[in-house]
Parts: sequence; structure tokens; C-alpha cells
Amino acid sequence: MKTLDLKIRLRCGDDIAIGPGKADLLAAIQEAGSISGAARLLGMSYRRAWLLVETMNRCFREPLVSTSAGGRHGGGTQLTATGEQVLKSYRDLCVRALAEIESHMGEITALLVT
Amino acid sequence: MKTLDLKIRLRCGDDIAIGPGKADLLAAIQEAGSISGAARLLGMSYRRAWLLVETMNRCFREPLVSTSAGGRHGGGTQLTATGEQVLKSYRDLCVRALAEIESHMGEITALLVT
Repeated sequence: MKTLDLKIRLRCGDDIAIGPGKADLLAAIQEAGSISGAARLLGMSYRRAWLLVETMNRCFREPLVSTSAGGRHGGGTQLTATGEQVLKSYRDLCVRALAEIESHMGEITALLVT
Repeated sequence: MKTLDLKIRLRCGDDIAIGPGKADLLAAIQEAGSISGAARLLGMSYRRAWLLVETMNRCFREPLVSTSAGGRHGGGTQLTATGEQVLKSYRDLCVRALAEIESHMGEITALLVT
């Protein structure tokens, strides 16, 4: 079975601003409504998830994740508008790049064993 | 400083048929004329380089690397025509994908800190 793996990472100095792992984490935060819940979904430690969020929040002009304490529903963690936009733009980039690769990989896949 | 990292890996079952490391190895074999020389250029063990070549030769219909013993110049290791084609096609794919990403990453890079 032939499959294509694509990893796009956007670096900002020594940090990775966004890449496959951070995009998955943003999506998991969106789903779980908390960093701890997202960490559980992805099987990573809370500390690691928190550090990844810190890095993202540092790399972008505005935080991608915000935590509101208290309130009617007891607060929670969610993506900011910037967070949603970064996640969507990153996924779009991946889809475009994959489509570009797939439409030009015929020559190389023809050389693979079947 | 913002930089873009792109990794394209073509899997063939459980093996990686070609990816960044194997492409670098093919180029190093082309340059060094031997697997041991290529391994030195890349700072990897001969054993690791040899295993990567074995995997590539297994994944493609024809070997990508051939070794000729003896002969006027004492033989040597070189890329086959298929090896040259795979390396070129892979590099072309990377260039195309990078161009596609770079022409659509304005939205996300505008959100990064300067």
C-alpha cells in the first residue's frame, strides 16, 4: 500500500509556531474545551500540552488559546478567533500541498513495486 | 526569522520508500561514489546507510543504487537510471509543494509576531 506523508512546519526563530502536532492540539482543545481534556484525547501529558500552547501563544501576535475563569458555565478554555483562523489556514495549506503533490507524483509512484 | 519546513515521505507498506533522509543519501552516493563515503558525508554509520539503500532497492521495481566490483577504476557504487529519476522526481515534488505552500501562506504568516 502506498501512502503519502506530508509534514509542514512553520518555524518562528527556534520555535515551531505551527505544525502537525500543534494543529492536532488546537483541534483537540476545540473539541475538549480544556487543555487537560485535549491532552487526554491526544495521550500527552498536561505539561507538554501546556508548553505547546505557550509556544503558540508566543509565536503569534495574538493568543491562539484563551482561558476564561468562572462565569455561568464555570469558565473553560477555547480557541480565540486567531486560533481558529490559524488552524483553518494551516489545514488549508496542507490540503493544497497534498493536492499539488498528488497531481504530480505519478512519475515516482509508477516506479514503486506494486 | 520565519522559515518553512516541509517533509514529504512516500510510504510503501511499512517502509518509507523515499523521504528527506533517503533523498540526501542518494545525492551523497552520487557525490561520493560509495556507500561508505556517502555515510561519512552525512555523518551516519555505514550500516545505517546500507539499510536505507536496501529499503529503497526493495521498494522500487528496480534498484536505485548499484555496485560494480572490479573494472578499470576498481568498481564503485552509483545511482542507476531509476535512482537518478527517483531523486529528481522527489526533488521536483518538494519544489512544487514548497511553491504551492509559499504562495498561499500569507494569511498565516501575517498572524505571526514580526
